[in-house]
Amino acid sequence: MASIKSASNVTGAFMAPSSELAPLHGGDLAAASRLFPGAPEPFLDLSTGINPNPYPVPPLAPDLWTKLPEPEALSRLAAMAAQAYGAPSSAHIAVAPGTQILVALAVGLVPPGRAAVLGPTYAEHARLARLAGYRVTEVSNVEELGEADLVIVVNPNNPDGRIVDREALLTIADRLRPRGGLLIVDEAFMDVGPKCASLGDEAARGNIVVLRSFGKFFGLAGLRLGFVLASTDLATALAASLGPWPVSGAALAIGTTALADTAWRAATRVSLAGSAQRLDAMLTNAKLEIVGGTALFRLTRSPAAPELFQHLGRAGIFTRRFAEESSWLRFGLPGDEPQWQRLSAALDSFGKSPR
Amino acid sequence: MASIKSASNVTGAFMAPSSELAPLHGGDLAAASRLFPGAPEPFLDLSTGINPNPYPVPPLAPDLWTKLPEPEALSRLAAMAAQAYGAPSSAHIAVAPGTQILVALAVGLVPPGRAAVLGPTYAEHARLARLAGYRVTEVSNVEELGEADLVIVVNPNNPDGRIVDREALLTIADRLRPRGGLLIVDEAFMDVGPKCASLGDEAARGNIVVLRSFGKFFGLAGLRLGFVLASTDLATALAASLGPWPVSGAALAIGTTALADTAWRAATRVSLAGSAQRLDAMLTNAKLEIVGGTALFRLTRSPAAPELFQHLGRAGIFTRRFAEESSWLRFGLPGDEPQWQRLSAALDSFGKSPR
Repeated sequence: MASIKSASNVTGAFMAPSSELAPLHGGDLAAASRLFPGAPEPFLDLSTGINPNPYPVPPLAPDLWTKLPEPEALSRLAAMAAQAYGAPSSAHIAVAPGTQILVALAVGLVPPGRAAVLGPTYAEHARLARLAGYRVTEVSNVEELGEADLVIVVNPNNPDGRIVDREALLTIADRLRPRGGLLIVDEAFMDVGPKCASLGDEAARGNIVVLRSFGKFFGLAGLRLGFVLASTDLATALAASLGPWPVSGAALAIGTTALADTAWRAATRVSLAGSAQRLDAMLTNAKLEIVGGTALFRLTRSPAAPELFQHLGRAGIFTRRFAEESSWLRFGLPGDEPQWQRLSAALDSFGKSPR
Repeated sequence: MASIKSASNVTGAFMAPSSELAPLHGGDLAAASRLFPGAPEPFLDLSTGINPNPYPVPPLAPDLWTKLPEPEALSRLAAMAAQAYGAPSSAHIAVAPGTQILVALAVGLVPPGRAAVLGPTYAEHARLARLAGYRVTEVSNVEELGEADLVIVVNPNNPDGRIVDREALLTIADRLRPRGGLLIVDEAFMDVGPKCASLGDEAARGNIVVLRSFGKFFGLAGLRLGFVLASTDLATALAASLGPWPVSGAALAIGTTALADTAWRAATRVSLAGSAQRLDAMLTNAKLEIVGGTALFRLTRSPAAPELFQHLGRAGIFTRRFAEESSWLRFGLPGDEPQWQRLSAALDSFGKSPR
């Protein structure tokens, strides 16, 4: 006897968020324009953790648009992802149009039960687990994670950059295994994280699903490309749900080229680390406490955060605030020197200008 | 108590099909090259139902690659899709990277039970329903569909172009409703089908999910873009699983522009119908019986189909054969005059050349 699940508590992905603290996600510059109608545009968007100096998009063959992507192109990308992310082989990879859909599919791999999310973190994971029928608890301590059927950890974490070490995660996976539970580790920012914390090479264990995002580190968030690293059974099941053409021809071509470009990746890691240091100095100088973050974003704390968000917004600089913690403000990296100068000037003028 | 579902019977989407009758899908030219190593390349690919004269891709702003797509761009595309496909409003639309993933998500909307697929048709739907835990029956008669919990109809059908009329489908939906069952209608080829058969305007009924494919009619299969038309509850649930950035910036921009181009769409319908007529004449002249099809592909029957597939393949023309029906051969449309001449010459020489 089948019955259609109620979607009454679901927030539609293309509906504008209704909260005063909108937008719920970074990168929504139309919302920024609405919030700050008089601000000088274009906005300097520091509301995301996306590399502002993207991988250069190579010229694209017309066939990439017109033809169905070929299985061999998908295999090549999977092989390159396995190498870049440290999976045992390409049989442990599923390719997807972003990691969001992978979470939605992965939570469906186990019958709904109790889910624990290590928080505070990106709200989508808990939302998707709830949508799949889980009772979701957000816990703040790794020790509290182990009793659930589904455990979700973002590592390094967004927004605070917290890193959970490998051994702790493997212990959780071991505790989940006897009762058929699943550990999902979202390594969206692991490109700039400590490689030793990645569980990519443990993907064969059977109840670990590692998610890797392409768009953030490579600065190509509009491309929609993400990967799962998992056991061959799980990777195969997820790939089967996504079907034979999971991503665009452009994503296959650009993804394969970019992941193979080890020189660009190494140089970018160095350059992002330098930018993060420069940003920390600028933010500290503005009397903001650095709570944490990764090389792609920095989380600050200050009692003046709400006013600073408004001040920067009026100056056309869009940052990320948090409904659950009003003293926080997250900053992405400026991209070029004029952007750095614009941020510096706006921070300098905070408290000095009439509000 | 959770346990991970077995994926042992699943065919990985990026694994090469192992059957001698590979490839399982059209458009796999690498497989064509393996089957016909001596053929003149590039192949003329007639193995798909994709418009060979695509919508011209407009110049793309760099932001489409680098930025996360904005919610308002998604709303605009949903509104345009509602208008183009006849849904009551954009609240009845979910945007996805192709319809395949929508089938995978839609079959998860009802607890697995009995599924009936009107066949013979595209194998993916039955596969995805099985993957979701359904017991799947393929039936050849509309009257046999009503007893299942999930009914899947491709309309117009691929490969034979069979059209199920609106009233029959609405009757099935009515019979499914009391037991909470769901009707999925894949209208991938409805752009060239009889508009009066579309259930797009009935999407509000609550247990009908209509799928529309963008890539086939617009000839941009590599873009990965598809739509669901459904009740606001179902559309919202599907959109929620897909998350706030379901498709690429390029898909948002190109999709919105192309769907709004009513002149191109009207002219293309006329031009495709003319091409289908020309193809029918050519195939009939070659002693093939036209079984059916749509304006984007023609299905033929002939005892010589296996030999003709080989003959055309050696001439660098790749068509679609069927494991379940060896006398069938499906032809997509040639794109330009040299391609028409190439097909004509190859058909003419069949039976005359040494094999």
